[in-house]
Amino acid sequence: ATGSAPAFAQGAPEVKWRCVSSFPKSLDTIFGAAEVMSKRIAAATNGKFQVQVFAAGEIVGGFQVLDAVQGGTVECGHTAPYYYVGKDPTFALGTAIPFGMNCRQFNAWWYVGGGDQVFNEFVNTYGVQSFLCGNTGAQMGGWYRKEIKTVADLKGLKLRIGGFAGQVLAKLGVVPQQIPGGEIYPALEKGTIDAAEWVGPYDDEKLGLNKIAKFYYYPGWWEGGPALHTFVNQKAWAALPKDYQAIFEAACHEGNTMMMARYDAGNPPALKKLVAGGTQLRGFPRPVMDACYLAALELYAETSAKNPAFKKVYEHYMKFLEDQVAWFRVCEGTYDNFMANRPKPGAAPAKKA
Amino acid sequence: ATGSAPAFAQGAPEVKWRCVSSFPKSLDTIFGAAEVMSKRIAAATNGKFQVQVFAAGEIVGGFQVLDAVQGGTVECGHTAPYYYVGKDPTFALGTAIPFGMNCRQFNAWWYVGGGDQVFNEFVNTYGVQSFLCGNTGAQMGGWYRKEIKTVADLKGLKLRIGGFAGQVLAKLGVVPQQIPGGEIYPALEKGTIDAAEWVGPYDDEKLGLNKIAKFYYYPGWWEGGPALHTFVNQKAWAALPKDYQAIFEAACHEGNTMMMARYDAGNPPALKKLVAGGTQLRGFPRPVMDACYLAALELYAETSAKNPAFKKVYEHYMKFLEDQVAWFRVCEGTYDNFMANRPKPGAAPAKKA
Repeated sequence: ATGSAPAFAQGAPEVKWRCVSSFPKSLDTIFGAAEVMSKRIAAATNGKFQVQVFAAGEIVGGFQVLDAVQGGTVECGHTAPYYYVGKDPTFALGTAIPFGMNCRQFNAWWYVGGGDQVFNEFVNTYGVQSFLCGNTGAQMGGWYRKEIKTVADLKGLKLRIGGFAGQVLAKLGVVPQQIPGGEIYPALEKGTIDAAEWVGPYDDEKLGLNKIAKFYYYPGWWEGGPALHTFVNQKAWAALPKDYQAIFEAACHEGNTMMMARYDAGNPPALKKLVAGGTQLRGFPRPVMDACYLAALELYAETSAKNPAFKKVYEHYMKFLEDQVAWFRVCEGTYDNFMANRPKPGAAPAKKA
Repeated sequence: ATGSAPAFAQGAPEVKWRCVSSFPKSLDTIFGAAEVMSKRIAAATNGKFQVQVFAAGEIVGGFQVLDAVQGGTVECGHTAPYYYVGKDPTFALGTAIPFGMNCRQFNAWWYVGGGDQVFNEFVNTYGVQSFLCGNTGAQMGGWYRKEIKTVADLKGLKLRIGGFAGQVLAKLGVVPQQIPGGEIYPALEKGTIDAAEWVGPYDDEKLGLNKIAKFYYYPGWWEGGPALHTFVNQKAWAALPKDYQAIFEAACHEGNTMMMARYDAGNPPALKKLVAGGTQLRGFPRPVMDACYLAALELYAETSAKNPAFKKVYEHYMKFLEDQVAWFRVCEGTYDNFMANRPKPGAAPAKKA
């Protein structure tokens, strides 16, 4: 880029932070959101404020990001809050719950609808401030060796799936399996599991699951728009110069937007390749979706009864979701649906009226 | 916010830019995108880099933003490129064309798919560099005094609509009317026009069109995800310190994300109010949509034949759109459609398998 000499004077304080990612570098879209953030911060401060990103396992494991940030081992981390549902199910509401908001709806909830405040009130109890930094968009429903034609086909199905979605599916007879990404392929190949969900075409293709399971289901109703966050240690945040804080926040916004854009750009060609290679696309049958949806509501009622923090964030989230869905149904949805089913170019020309 | 003393030293250069908006302050979501940008730039530089935003008419009129930036009257402007289709129809591809990409698809095209480069190659010929800075999402199809039931109902309809959409509809007998926002209400009230499109519930409610036209149509197929831009004079850009450039870019990203979030948060309650007040929602009938779509393709073919710049950007855009729609149809669309039609909470509980 062109531009004159940088404005940051030599006297500006040098700040070096470490950011631990929950993801391997191979997941370049997700891992990349933290890199987008880091690069922007460096460029915006003439290199005075450096946030070095470490892949999962380099400093701490992918699921230890919250602990590392909370304990001050590192200043920040890029992660999916729902990895910490074992500590408290409320974390799920920061990423995705089954039949939750899509990417745009979640952004609106977070940035404008008060989601930022209500969720941060919760994560602040862990000594952490959370900034939205990425989204995968609606994920696929995973790879299956046999078709799912009825709710009964879920019974006994050993499906690699975690968190709330696993609990919802357990209500319908699925035996959820928690398996790290790198071990999915051998488990599915050996038949230890019958099916596995991961992300979407762009990431799934890299795991090669299409080679060992033919049916690729949609949509992944448990992740309609999972959000990634940058967790920041509150003490480190408070010590940061105010203009660096502003730059950090802006860089997280950019990580958020760019990650979604990269998935949206990467998924279509990957899906085409998969389908060309023999993958069979299948939509979950409506009765299966309905049963899962009602099982999810049951789970949320149970969780709310036990956990006031969950109840508070959940009710805030659901109120916003109801309005969002009603609006998207009218305008955004009818537009997308027409585009998905528009006449083929080259069909009969428009009749002059 | 907390935070220690700012890092920008006293020696950092003070830069003051003026940003002319194409919009009045009353359109707080659109006008607000430039304010988001401006505030972030000031906060990120400890006030050293100030971008003051002027509403339409304060320095130049809303449609003179390109001229003002190109001529160096101001350093930058926040506008919708399609306002300049009179200079060249290629500008439309920077905002929206009928049956074009939705917000997420456009972001993916711009940020990852090469849209930024191909569109800037065109606007650079005007001495301008363009940064994405806002989106309204899919707009509504406007306010009609009589229902549109068939393609024949379009014949002779005096509809307030501009640009490409007006040209498409003219092929079907509509008499497009170009009327500034502030004059729509009296024109519709007096019967000078039969119908008018504006933006969506949040903005339309302010104009009060619901009081004089009962039928509110969706979707606004001519604006499936119109993008706003910050135009920057290329010489001003080149003279900017590199770190200020980085901050400016990040701030535009944020303006882009925030504007969409604000519309998404604001539209649902506005729509509810309109419907509660007697507004009748109507979807454009499928044959009307089909006829408009085919008329649009005809117009694009005619325009491409006459204008090589349009042809180049259009073909790049459409190739990306095809892939996007195919992917959204599979995953994002089926998810949104299920959510739009999910069983009512409180219905029969899930059957245990």
